[in-house]
Amino acid sequence: MKAEIIAIGSELLTPDRMDTNSLWLTQRLNTAGFEVHLKSVVGDNIDNIETLLRAALRRSQLIILSGGLGPTEDDLTRMAAARALGRNLRLDEEILESLRRRFALRDTRMAKINERQAEVIEAAEILQNPVGTAPGMWIEEGGTYLALLPGPPRELQTMFDTHVMSRALQLGGDRILETRSLSLHGLPESEVDTRIAPIYKLYPHIQTTILAAKGCISVRLQHWLAAAEKPSELEELADKILAELGDVVFTNADEKLEDVVGRLLRKSSRSLAVAESCTAGMLGATLTRVPGSSDYFRGGIICYSNKLKTNLCHVPSELLERHGAVSAEVAESLARGIREITGSSIGISVTGIAGPGGGTEQKPVGLVYVGLADASRSEHTRRVFSGDRDTVRELTVSAALGRLRRFLISTGDAI
Amino acid sequence: MKAEIIAIGSELLTPDRMDTNSLWLTQRLNTAGFEVHLKSVVGDNIDNIETLLRAALRRSQLIILSGGLGPTEDDLTRMAAARALGRNLRLDEEILESLRRRFALRDTRMAKINERQAEVIEAAEILQNPVGTAPGMWIEEGGTYLALLPGPPRELQTMFDTHVMSRALQLGGDRILETRSLSLHGLPESEVDTRIAPIYKLYPHIQTTILAAKGCISVRLQHWLAAAEKPSELEELADKILAELGDVVFTNADEKLEDVVGRLLRKSSRSLAVAESCTAGMLGATLTRVPGSSDYFRGGIICYSNKLKTNLCHVPSELLERHGAVSAEVAESLARGIREITGSSIGISVTGIAGPGGGTEQKPVGLVYVGLADASRSEHTRRVFSGDRDTVRELTVSAALGRLRRFLISTGDAI
Repeated sequence: MKAEIIAIGSELLTPDRMDTNSLWLTQRLNTAGFEVHLKSVVGDNIDNIETLLRAALRRSQLIILSGGLGPTEDDLTRMAAARALGRNLRLDEEILESLRRRFALRDTRMAKINERQAEVIEAAEILQNPVGTAPGMWIEEGGTYLALLPGPPRELQTMFDTHVMSRALQLGGDRILETRSLSLHGLPESEVDTRIAPIYKLYPHIQTTILAAKGCISVRLQHWLAAAEKPSELEELADKILAELGDVVFTNADEKLEDVVGRLLRKSSRSLAVAESCTAGMLGATLTRVPGSSDYFRGGIICYSNKLKTNLCHVPSELLERHGAVSAEVAESLARGIREITGSSIGISVTGIAGPGGGTEQKPVGLVYVGLADASRSEHTRRVFSGDRDTVRELTVSAALGRLRRFLISTGDAI
Repeated sequence: MKAEIIAIGSELLTPDRMDTNSLWLTQRLNTAGFEVHLKSVVGDNIDNIETLLRAALRRSQLIILSGGLGPTEDDLTRMAAARALGRNLRLDEEILESLRRRFALRDTRMAKINERQAEVIEAAEILQNPVGTAPGMWIEEGGTYLALLPGPPRELQTMFDTHVMSRALQLGGDRILETRSLSLHGLPESEVDTRIAPIYKLYPHIQTTILAAKGCISVRLQHWLAAAEKPSELEELADKILAELGDVVFTNADEKLEDVVGRLLRKSSRSLAVAESCTAGMLGATLTRVPGSSDYFRGGIICYSNKLKTNLCHVPSELLERHGAVSAEVAESLARGIREITGSSIGISVTGIAGPGGGTEQKPVGLVYVGLADASRSEHTRRVFSGDRDTVRELTVSAALGRLRRFLISTGDAI
């Protein structure tokens, strides 16, 4: 079954913004048995939206429209869809009431303009929006189905999973997309490809994609399977790739490094604290993206200035003078210090030069040390990253989590 | 003049890959005086490519097709375009010869399949490809122009700049895109629109877009200006909107809240430290995204556990017992504590319930307190955010920065 995605919003036609919703939607639609065969981005222009939708109605079985459902003059999706379908818009009293309640809860008077969000297309099913004000719609027209969803990613995702996924599964289920994914840390993309290409080329019917993002690499395998067909060799290929790459692979599920690290900490009943210089809190923020991380994460110190490194993290000032703040010695001292100060099982530290300024010949921009300490030992890793300030800091956080994972495996129970 | 971009390639319809060429192309096209009014991504499917191109020919003055010009079975752009235009394909002897030479230079025999790359559409101008094998084409059809370019970004960019840009400037160059942008914090999107719609509606020729992201709102104005025309009323409209919205507007440049806060701190020679509970480092990480932030940012404490709130940040344990960690009293105490401990001019703190667990009836998920203290006073803000864990934490960071900006203005020099 063929699905089509139409993203609406003039801001998505600027050089600075992308329609990233469509990636997430594609993953979900594939799971439901839909192949996404077309994607479009259109501005807040009622004629263009209408034209696109008319064309989509002729060629797709499921159409997802995202965006343009807000309260402002620019939000034209409702009206354009009504036109393309040849239906009227009506004001829904129930939605209006719930909008008013929502504003009242936050002690705000609802501006008149918000009433637009209560306009619905004739014979549409209304999809409640639990995380925002704009409700969505589900519409059937001559055997084709349309979902109108709001543009903000969290609203779109919540509403798709709440309302659309089950409907799509009912419509799409004659083919399924088999997928496997391995994520790894610690090898460059080119080396991954050189090592696994001789393996995946033996399975030409399986689509293999290698993707790099923020220091981690994912190898994704996919294959469309008719419902009656027997399972393909996806599992076999994934196993062979895993055997080739070994323990740099940290997950074969849809997990991030911080999830894996969290599981390892929890499993071995150990606690963790951070001392961060150049990342200034990014490592702590990343570790605590995991719900329930307070079970093992105690907190830490952002020792951006040297004074805080000595005064709060107990790094001897001689060490700072002799080796400089960005050094193996200071990294390990920070890790030992934060561990003791917070009474945690493990301390982890980061010190480096994120740039753009501050680099020297011996210590260039991108130089980073990660320190680690538990009760019996301390150690460090040195890396030099290239890229801008944001990139260096992101890669540093990945490097710290990757190193922490290895430390947890080598000093405790493995996965 | 209206331009349209069509990206061709089934890999661009997977959950992992985006058509990033279109961002680069949009920037160039805007510079040449073209507005990009539609973008599409289509797989290696000849019917879909043909249909899209037929529709594009009816509504756009310039169409850029990228991808699908390679030598394989999947590369269907040439044939689809020929069909949409109702023209024939012919084998170009000159291209064929240059392909053969290219292969010979690398001591490789040219596989038969590469001959496809020498097929050109009748009456097309051939665009040489200095960095790859697939040549491009420039075609005129009833007043609309088409550029067929290869998909790999380096080839596409080189060929656009070599062959297409000058042609586009000749066609579109009579207009330039004027833009202005205002960013603000502290008002909901709907209220911003209600207040400024009566103003921007008086300037219907200027496109006004309101965007919300992570607690901040941007108002973007743009207008296509004919070369002969005198500058439009963009500046006038921007000034009127600024006058209406007042000091919630934190910038009229392309700046973030952390840039503005940094400038205010630097200007008044004040330093800052953070005490973060639920955000666990995100506020510190955001403040230090600004290069040179070490001039005013000292660091801070991630007091994720209550023990660290008392032991490291000096919050009296009676206060925690009486009011709970998520309270105005603890927020202010944290701000005072971190200021004293780090010897900074200002302390800022965050404590809240990011969820998904941990909420109660009195203290629901999303409840957040921001505390602020300088030498003479301390204060706090209470907010209740809706959304998932990531959203609550992001909105909290924005709220803290927004509050800090007001604190800096009210206690020091204004911008």
